[in-house]
Amino acid sequence: MDTPITTMPVIDFWFEFGSNYSYLSVMRIEQDAARAGVRVRWQPFLLGPIFQALGWNTSPFVLQRAKGDYVWLDMERQCRKYGLPWKKPGNFPRSAILPLRVAVLAAEQSWMAEYCRRIMQMNFAHDRDIDNREVVTAVLNDMGLPAAEIIAQALSDENKLKLRKQTELAMHKGIFGAPTFFVGEQMFWGNDRLDDALRFCNDLLIHPDA
Amino acid sequence: MDTPITTMPVIDFWFEFGSNYSYLSVMRIEQDAARAGVRVRWQPFLLGPIFQALGWNTSPFVLQRAKGDYVWLDMERQCRKYGLPWKKPGNFPRSAILPLRVAVLAAEQSWMAEYCRRIMQMNFAHDRDIDNREVVTAVLNDMGLPAAEIIAQALSDENKLKLRKQTELAMHKGIFGAPTFFVGEQMFWGNDRLDDALRFCNDLLIHPDA
Repeated sequence: MDTPITTMPVIDFWFEFGSNYSYLSVMRIEQDAARAGVRVRWQPFLLGPIFQALGWNTSPFVLQRAKGDYVWLDMERQCRKYGLPWKKPGNFPRSAILPLRVAVLAAEQSWMAEYCRRIMQMNFAHDRDIDNREVVTAVLNDMGLPAAEIIAQALSDENKLKLRKQTELAMHKGIFGAPTFFVGEQMFWGNDRLDDALRFCNDLLIHPDA
Repeated sequence: MDTPITTMPVIDFWFEFGSNYSYLSVMRIEQDAARAGVRVRWQPFLLGPIFQALGWNTSPFVLQRAKGDYVWLDMERQCRKYGLPWKKPGNFPRSAILPLRVAVLAAEQSWMAEYCRRIMQMNFAHDRDIDNREVVTAVLNDMGLPAAEIIAQALSDENKLKLRKQTELAMHKGIFGAPTFFVGEQMFWGNDRLDDALRFCNDLLIHPDA
């Protein structure tokens, strides 16, 4: 690793803990980005207000039955492909405000990636309610972190506002689903575009004016 | 090629000439399927009635502006990735009833794949109106085929009914967008799943009871 950190290309990773396709990306992005020599900037946001602005009161996977039925088969196959555990959530889409508030607080911390993977597995491998103080406490404790202190900070007005601002910024950037990746101003939507986005990072490094 | 044709796995390829992501699959499926040792069964259908059943009067890429804006950037990048020509259609989604009627007639003909690629390129590389007798005639003539005779057959009541039946079958199978692939009863939605679907064909061949 001779490359100084300042020249590493960056990928912005917009995700939601309630989003099943975000699960796939959360589980693999650190490893795939490291292999590509790209730094991940974690951008948690709330998908609910984005769907509401489209006139939807829930996930399109619930509103469109045929697509919803398909998505669970697809998830089963995708998880097999990536070698990830999978259990169809008994409740979908799950609200994830508390774990997202913690994520906003932790975005720059060294434990962010591991925290996100653990919360995602609670939702999509263990079928647990994640918008729940007990579950978030257990995840943080298992990581050896001061859960009570972190949750208190996550529930501060300042931090709550930070999550709202993230969501407004997502809407402003034209984000309409999750996961979404940005490399500079280039948007890539969906776990299926993560590889393209990482390749694009390196094209930029080689041809910075492209 | 020692494998007798009867044991070749089959992929059903449901597509629409008006659908931009179908364009990507139409252009590459024969080559990719041949490489995987899989036979393609072409299944043209009308996407309009499927969208209407969802309460939509046009493509979701028109109804959802942010998604629509994204899709054209994505198409540009995807076409570059696959080495395909691309010009954003001046009219989207284009009606494609006449070329689809010809496709239904031609589904089992040796010239089907080439015909479909040429119609798709009219729409997505040359920005031409494709629901048009002149354009369809030109495509067929350029392929050395008797255009007037084929179009007359395509416009027979029997053949018109065939396209309606295809569309009903698509709806019955739970198809909600295009392209969609079936390997046996397993559905795969979107050009992004073509590789998975072809791999699945071969898994079935190795483990027929899986």
